[in-house]
Amino acid sequence: MTIPEIIERKREGGTHSRAELEQLILGFVAGTVPDYQVAAWLMAVYLKGMTAEETTVLTQVMAASGEQMDLSSLSRTADKHSTGGVGDKTSLVLTPILAACGLTVAKMSGRGLAHTGGTIDKLESFPGWSPELEESAFLRQAKEIGLVLVGQSKNLAPADGLLYALRDVTATVPSIALIASSIMSKKLASGAQTIVLDVKVGAGAFMKTLEDARALAKAMLEIGQLAGRNTRAVLTDMETPLGSMMGNALEVKEALETLHGAGAADLRELCLELARETLLAEGFSSEEANKLPCQALDSGAALEKFRLFVAAQGGDSSFVTHPEKLVIASGREVIRATTSGYLAKLDALAVGKAVLALGGGREQKGEAIDHSVGVEIHCKPSARLEVGTPIATIYHNAGRGLATATQLLQHATSVSSSAVPVAPLILERLA
Amino acid sequence: MTIPEIIERKREGGTHSRAELEQLILGFVAGTVPDYQVAAWLMAVYLKGMTAEETTVLTQVMAASGEQMDLSSLSRTADKHSTGGVGDKTSLVLTPILAACGLTVAKMSGRGLAHTGGTIDKLESFPGWSPELEESAFLRQAKEIGLVLVGQSKNLAPADGLLYALRDVTATVPSIALIASSIMSKKLASGAQTIVLDVKVGAGAFMKTLEDARALAKAMLEIGQLAGRNTRAVLTDMETPLGSMMGNALEVKEALETLHGAGAADLRELCLELARETLLAEGFSSEEANKLPCQALDSGAALEKFRLFVAAQGGDSSFVTHPEKLVIASGREVIRATTSGYLAKLDALAVGKAVLALGGGREQKGEAIDHSVGVEIHCKPSARLEVGTPIATIYHNAGRGLATATQLLQHATSVSSSAVPVAPLILERLA
Repeated sequence: MTIPEIIERKREGGTHSRAELEQLILGFVAGTVPDYQVAAWLMAVYLKGMTAEETTVLTQVMAASGEQMDLSSLSRTADKHSTGGVGDKTSLVLTPILAACGLTVAKMSGRGLAHTGGTIDKLESFPGWSPELEESAFLRQAKEIGLVLVGQSKNLAPADGLLYALRDVTATVPSIALIASSIMSKKLASGAQTIVLDVKVGAGAFMKTLEDARALAKAMLEIGQLAGRNTRAVLTDMETPLGSMMGNALEVKEALETLHGAGAADLRELCLELARETLLAEGFSSEEANKLPCQALDSGAALEKFRLFVAAQGGDSSFVTHPEKLVIASGREVIRATTSGYLAKLDALAVGKAVLALGGGREQKGEAIDHSVGVEIHCKPSARLEVGTPIATIYHNAGRGLATATQLLQHATSVSSSAVPVAPLILERLA
Repeated sequence: MTIPEIIERKREGGTHSRAELEQLILGFVAGTVPDYQVAAWLMAVYLKGMTAEETTVLTQVMAASGEQMDLSSLSRTADKHSTGGVGDKTSLVLTPILAACGLTVAKMSGRGLAHTGGTIDKLESFPGWSPELEESAFLRQAKEIGLVLVGQSKNLAPADGLLYALRDVTATVPSIALIASSIMSKKLASGAQTIVLDVKVGAGAFMKTLEDARALAKAMLEIGQLAGRNTRAVLTDMETPLGSMMGNALEVKEALETLHGAGAADLRELCLELARETLLAEGFSSEEANKLPCQALDSGAALEKFRLFVAAQGGDSSFVTHPEKLVIASGREVIRATTSGYLAKLDALAVGKAVLALGGGREQKGEAIDHSVGVEIHCKPSARLEVGTPIATIYHNAGRGLATATQLLQHATSVSSSAVPVAPLILERLA
């Protein structure tokens, strides 16, 4: 088939064979298929969609376009993906829980972009900690501790990077099939046998509605399952930030509090939920999946795994046992309620943008960030407020971005005169 | 608006403003909007369509992307466009008829490509005739004779050439809106006030079905009318070749026979029909539109206009009065009926391909052609055949392409045992 014939097939709503997708995608990566043909095809995919089998094949072709991690020497490998949110430090708590439950987490993580944070950035709050490891050290640490986290290889699913860059400038980003294949191509190439997906819904998430999030979760779940991975997905709320702390060091602090047995209730709930789903996907019994993650947290086993992990990658593990050593910006500004009532809304996107304004995130890839700044929120929707009740504290460095952050946070809240029902954190489970 | 926002608008089925189309199309011509963005937009247009007003604006933007002919110093300017067929030498007869009726035909014509011929190629059968004229000579000849035909300027609607090249490799050619705007952008830029469109339907035409042809004719008609031009359209049959002669010199010979008052009935019928439509569009009464073209043909006035036109552009006009001087290939091969019955089909596409095989057309732009070769057909569908009845004569040069042409023509016909109804030539009129 010629490339125009392949494009025509999708234009007419047809279904691609593996050979067609390989010809198109691998040709694009090799530079023999020009971007304008891929752009026309992307728009046809956007408007005509893809079947689950077709999306899976596309994902596999993208995954096979570069380096693929071989984790076959490891047992019970598990990975988690979150579609990104504000205050989402789940990986820092979940992965040591899983390691303490006997699973192997040998994972690649990303850096933050725009209003969403990245696990690698957060971990760099530990002095000395490095996201770069040779493959042999990566596998050795995975075997010894059950937990290793590195930055994402540039050669992981290079087709995805190229396609994403083209989608970004051709108005073809928000396609469920293309988003699902983009995420899952990296998950498949990362090699874990079990994959748990946390699909965020709401103001601070990429997916703004439950319907869209469900469609994306379903598409990713189907890809994982059709590709032979143990896959489960959870839809979780991201109208409001997760936990109380936003910003890199602040989030690490909160994650450590949770590993120490304390921390925000919603963060603990989500970590235990995702751990349970991972264990279920891995084949543990329902009883074990309910019990083991709580034990791992409450016994301190997860905390110890995390300490070993930080130390193994060069980090100062005294910060794990003494979270108060983490460097937090000294400037403080408290946002208080100006009216009494019930907190009806605390917009996650606005909080994320506030952290960005303070210097805690990056607008463009490669920018340096300030790990010490951020926002702490003191109450969640449904909380009773009086005039003067503290809603949030801004941690800033010498006032950088303070005015913008203050304005964003002032507009992030709304107050209701009557009681507000609490929205559930876990919205749906898909398996 | 950014270009991705413009693409998104069409992706969502929205309607573009003139400013948006100018930003996109003129940016593309200027090289500031990359082809991959235009490719994604073209696919969105293909799948979401455009309104008549929007298509008109796109056409005007394309027409304004380069040189625009200023025919304002001429009166009653008229132009005709055919979507292309086999044996379509209509322009050679129609344009002198119109000139003899007092209209001004100052027209750009194209060269042949694939199985369809081009007026410029045909006219080059006259020794010395040139399609190149300075603008002043072009306008002077238009005023003096009422008829001038030149090759299409490379700077006429350059956006169209660029868009067409991109559509060709991105599976976005067969879009009614894009085809209509492509054709009409050149017609608008060519400057005539009256435009008559001959939309061919059938095996030898670009539009294979009446439904598609009607949609294209309607789209072009709307563009012409919304752009303030007097526009009418006719749908005509192209299942079977037009007239009896196919090939450059052979078609000129047949056109001259028609101008001399003889010639094939269907060719005469179509020329008079298109002349009537042009006069009606130009504002002549129905009575005049019926009468004047016949008078122009039968009085010899059209023939004289044609003779003056050929001479004015450097051609040997003795060929006009003595068509037998035209150089026709000396090799002859007669295809005869191998069974008796009624001719049910004579496939125009196959005949066109036979001429191409003989060297009378070009596969690629710029190729040289042999004006002397071609095919003469001796009977049309519904004709009674006996074994041995001549169906066609192939005119070839030293056997070049003869085997292929013979095979094509043998497969081009089908014979029925019962009488076959004659399909009408003029299928529909749109105004």
